[in-house]
Amino acid sequence: MLIIMSREATPQQIEDVITHITELGLRAHPIPGEMRTAIGITGNQGPLHPEEFENLPGVVQAVRVTKSFKLVSRETKPEDTIVNVSGVKIGGAGLAIIGGPCSVESRDQILKSAEQVKTGGGHMLRGGAFKPRTSPYAFRGKGKDALEWLALAGKEFSLPVVSEVVDAESCEMAIPYLDMMQVGARNMQNFALLESVAKSGRPVLLKRGPAASLDELLNAAEYLLAAGNYQVVLCERGIRSFSDFARNTLDLNIVPAAKEASHLPIIVDPSHGTGHRKMVTPLARAAVAVGADGLIVEVHPDPDHALSDGYQTLFPQQFAALVSSLKPIAESLGRAL
Amino acid sequence: MLIIMSREATPQQIEDVITHITELGLRAHPIPGEMRTAIGITGNQGPLHPEEFENLPGVVQAVRVTKSFKLVSRETKPEDTIVNVSGVKIGGAGLAIIGGPCSVESRDQILKSAEQVKTGGGHMLRGGAFKPRTSPYAFRGKGKDALEWLALAGKEFSLPVVSEVVDAESCEMAIPYLDMMQVGARNMQNFALLESVAKSGRPVLLKRGPAASLDELLNAAEYLLAAGNYQVVLCERGIRSFSDFARNTLDLNIVPAAKEASHLPIIVDPSHGTGHRKMVTPLARAAVAVGADGLIVEVHPDPDHALSDGYQTLFPQQFAALVSSLKPIAESLGRAL
Amino acid sequence: MLIIMSREATPQQIEDVITHITELGLRAHPIPGEMRTAIGITGNQGPLHPEEFENLPGVVQAVRVTKSFKLVSRETKPEDTIVNVSGVKIGGAGLAIIGGPCSVESRDQILKSAEQVKTGGGHMLRGGAFKPRTSPYAFRGKGKDALEWLALAGKEFSLPVVSEVVDAESCEMAIPYLDMMQVGARNMQNFALLESVAKSGRPVLLKRGPAASLDELLNAAEYLLAAGNYQVVLCERGIRSFSDFARNTLDLNIVPAAKEASHLPIIVDPSHGTGHRKMVTPLARAAVAVGADGLIVEVHPDPDHALSDGYQTLFPQQFAALVSSLKPIAESLGRAL
Amino acid sequence: MLIIMSREATPQQIEDVITHITELGLRAHPIPGEMRTAIGITGNQGPLHPEEFENLPGVVQAVRVTKSFKLVSRETKPEDTIVNVSGVKIGGAGLAIIGGPCSVESRDQILKSAEQVKTGGGHMLRGGAFKPRTSPYAFRGKGKDALEWLALAGKEFSLPVVSEVVDAESCEMAIPYLDMMQVGARNMQNFALLESVAKSGRPVLLKRGPAASLDELLNAAEYLLAAGNYQVVLCERGIRSFSDFARNTLDLNIVPAAKEASHLPIIVDPSHGTGHRKMVTPLARAAVAVGADGLIVEVHPDPDHALSDGYQTLFPQQFAALVSSLKPIAESLGRAL
Repeated sequence: MLIIMSREATPQQIEDVITHITELGLRAHPIPGEMRTAIGITGNQGPLHPEEFENLPGVVQAVRVTKSFKLVSRETKPEDTIVNVSGVKIGGAGLAIIGGPCSVESRDQILKSAEQVKTGGGHMLRGGAFKPRTSPYAFRGKGKDALEWLALAGKEFSLPVVSEVVDAESCEMAIPYLDMMQVGARNMQNFALLESVAKSGRPVLLKRGPAASLDELLNAAEYLLAAGNYQVVLCERGIRSFSDFARNTLDLNIVPAAKEASHLPIIVDPSHGTGHRKMVTPLARAAVAVGADGLIVEVHPDPDHALSDGYQTLFPQQFAALVSSLKPIAESLGRAL
Repeated sequence: MLIIMSREATPQQIEDVITHITELGLRAHPIPGEMRTAIGITGNQGPLHPEEFENLPGVVQAVRVTKSFKLVSRETKPEDTIVNVSGVKIGGAGLAIIGGPCSVESRDQILKSAEQVKTGGGHMLRGGAFKPRTSPYAFRGKGKDALEWLALAGKEFSLPVVSEVVDAESCEMAIPYLDMMQVGARNMQNFALLESVAKSGRPVLLKRGPAASLDELLNAAEYLLAAGNYQVVLCERGIRSFSDFARNTLDLNIVPAAKEASHLPIIVDPSHGTGHRKMVTPLARAAVAVGADGLIVEVHPDPDHALSDGYQTLFPQQFAALVSSLKPIAESLGRAL
Repeated sequence: MLIIMSREATPQQIEDVITHITELGLRAHPIPGEMRTAIGITGNQGPLHPEEFENLPGVVQAVRVTKSFKLVSRETKPEDTIVNVSGVKIGGAGLAIIGGPCSVESRDQILKSAEQVKTGGGHMLRGGAFKPRTSPYAFRGKGKDALEWLALAGKEFSLPVVSEVVDAESCEMAIPYLDMMQVGARNMQNFALLESVAKSGRPVLLKRGPAASLDELLNAAEYLLAAGNYQVVLCERGIRSFSDFARNTLDLNIVPAAKEASHLPIIVDPSHGTGHRKMVTPLARAAVAVGADGLIVEVHPDPDHALSDGYQTLFPQQFAALVSSLKPIAESLGRAL
Repeated sequence: MLIIMSREATPQQIEDVITHITELGLRAHPIPGEMRTAIGITGNQGPLHPEEFENLPGVVQAVRVTKSFKLVSRETKPEDTIVNVSGVKIGGAGLAIIGGPCSVESRDQILKSAEQVKTGGGHMLRGGAFKPRTSPYAFRGKGKDALEWLALAGKEFSLPVVSEVVDAESCEMAIPYLDMMQVGARNMQNFALLESVAKSGRPVLLKRGPAASLDELLNAAEYLLAAGNYQVVLCERGIRSFSDFARNTLDLNIVPAAKEASHLPIIVDPSHGTGHRKMVTPLARAAVAVGADGLIVEVHPDPDHALSDGYQTLFPQQFAALVSSLKPIAESLGRAL
């Protein structure tokens, strides 16, 4: 943190700011300038808030100069992290494609989905068992049955499986079934859930909240690493904006930015990220071109009769066509698929 | 939901859309127009998504015509709901002022705070026991001790108390101590938590998420009412925008809009809503002028040494001055304070 | 600007940054720290961009420490500016109420509007002659005729008049008719227009763009002052957000923030700011409570037949009721109406 | 427009709404439903605003069902428009790459830039002569000299040239020099400028405003087509969001959405769209992968000494490497480069 004093600040006001900093257990480093004095602060553990200082007399502005996350930072660990999900590597030279339906609806549906994901070129299987829904009257998932069917389908087709958990109870229940735990966008800052998931010992897929800054996303990941779970994959899935043509605004800009700030891998969800089937394929290609480490895509044997999100779900043949169209793009960037 | 067909749509395409609607268990109502056909849909329980239909051949657009919330809607219950929190009424002719520190730090601090809130004209006491924080390294609250001290202070000064709970466990623990349960902004769509809180039997203070639409806020409230808890107070606390001068953008526009759409009371939090001590008082006055049913304001015996959020916290004398300045505004609107 | 070097930055990298700064004609002030070096920059005329430095090897971050605006800054001129529009003072102890229709439609309509504004307690008359409209097929104003009728109506009822100009030509044409020139939100950064308006010699009403930061708004005002026109009134009229209940999000937070950063007066437009007639009155009251220096409100003799924006326009009796309801709020803040 | 009446609406209220519609010169089409009545509206020339009807007694909601733009719509003209800029085709099977510096600084600088753009594989040359800048103290371009140098450089290296114009005067001045006129993001809704540019007879590059919806962008384009200029290329260049890692949020989602709604070509500006040199190349690749018809990229012989925007400008060798890396992506989509 750097405190900028007013040009008119009195020596007493400068002294008071230094005293305030010292009383917070921090060190003050006054830097006299031509027109005004600045005061550097060091010694803080967590983040400091500019507002903590901007209300002191004589202070014009307080600016952050370091980030509050540490373990997720590329300054801390310069080389890329590769997350290994039961054999599928996310973050290395390859590209990880996760496919599957929004919700696990039945044993048959998920078995059929798994087969189609495998045939279509996918590496992992997704499927919701616990569905957070905006309305209490919407379908909310088949719970433990869904977990069982999902695990079965994954085993049958040699696809590691990932599914969202929503609280300590569902997390506990899911451990025997899942290869990877997903924290959904609405729960990115549900810190109680982050701690449950961290303790599960499973790799974690952490989705960016719809209004989360990069700093907040990396701090949420920091919760997981600080609790001892280093197997974390970030996921961009669309931010909230004023858009009049897509449900969310898929923010591909975060991919290179996250890779510069952190060593963690990052994948992209073009299905939730756009909310329109027609937009999934072009945005999926763009995600690979921008440097994402993988994709998570909704595909269903019969999207028009899906119990949730059918409108943003690919048909199996569209999924296969998408995956095959990604190859030349991946290869042009020196990645295999 | 109303489906707008393309001017070029064939009779077969129109027929297919109708079949699709019927297969979803809904009723289709075709409405032929001069230039194009529209098709109304009725019979849905939960909300329908436009995207469900916009991908069908011949469809130009699908528009929602009814809201998915029911119990919170003013169409369902035209008269205002008044929530009674251990004697303090929120939503009637009066104005409810909730004051207190961001965090409960010690027995003495919260007792002193309670005295100052009471003297300053407040009606309820707030204080955090479980603090969700962006960084895992920041202070996260004193838990059960804090709940005990808060309950004690509330009793001592006859102020009902409210505090945030963050999961099923903290909710369970808090029941004996709290008069009102707060669901924080980051947890507005933590549906597992909403259900725990609903079952607690306590009135609920539901904070709007930083990127939540009115529709999403009312649907979150609908979770509480649908689970049998009708004692719900909404709270505006700032949305995320591109602002370069405030931490959040307090959105007072939602107050009249929420009152038109719903019978539930709504209060405003100008402390988190702006993140700057200097902005709290003017925005608090504006909140009363716009028609809010109350305020929740951070005040601390010694803000400059608060363990959290001191920069947005009023000094006790500022709190008292604020409350007294609200009187003429409230009275000019026919409300008592 | 303050440059933060990486902990790993080499002495050569630090030297290169200093050389780069010097080559830009600026002065570098290296500030060695415990873990890393920071480098202050002084001597810049206009603003520096962080990105200018963040791409240099060894640089972690560049942070702005001073603002690019000077003449509009309160540091430059601590006392409030009072703008005098043909006798009506904006920015002093009083409150300036500007009323009138969105568009000047006819001689009779604007005469009737003026009478109703005067009777209702307004101090100035507004009315559009040149209307920027999203669609080319919408009504775009009656031009010079409208200016003549507006000036006539203002004279008849002793109300100074304000209207929007959209280019050099309309600005030139409007000089004989207007007491104050309005720059619309869409044109806030139309710098060619700002210069025409500055040279007109008339006081200027500068509306904030729907995505403008405070910094950008004040820089737009700086264009006017830098061109010699010091009679500038800022106007908040709603920002673009994800709102699902109002056309724009009226951002009252900017009022105290602008008053802290600048000496210029600021008024609020609750009509465009919300886009709903029912929201105008509550938000207008909130604007006064938050400390605005005035209001600009749409009122029309017959809103339901207005040629533009009727849905956000008050009926004459609503306008009079609003103005009279503002009195106790203004007085409680020590302002007269 | 479709009007949704309340379940409680009286027959008289329904009648009044119909009368209101008729008085506006429109046709009302009442559609009785099981629980409520809806009323369709036809016959409007320009767009109708929901708010126009939502304030009438008994009305719950008004929803738009048709768009206000016509000539730009794909419903009007199903086949893609190909814009021919002095021989360079934008919108067909090829990809159009526009390169050049932010500002034309000197005869030598733009000649050198042109050579590097040509060598690097670009098809057109850009360079600013009139620069809209946030601060009045920043460099604002070299005007007519710049236009002359730019035209000279374009001719020398057989590259059609494009540059921004900011008002009627600069537009008039630029006609002899430019192959294509650019309307900048800040001026997207400067309708006076749109009309000047339309009349110039030159093809137009229309940049999306930082808070413009797709509807507003297409309506701005409609101004150009309605004035007789059909040679319009849209350009995405970043929207304003809460991002903490990029100056703007490049919104690639608009590319497939614009192509569905309109027949006009659309290109992408990753330089302004991100504001960071390091992000330009990955986002440029993503833009091609998502289906854009071309790119406009800032490149300068010596970015670190550029008079403007150097921090987001590629070095010549980076530009060449970018263009060559686009080939496999373009080819995988069936496009040539």
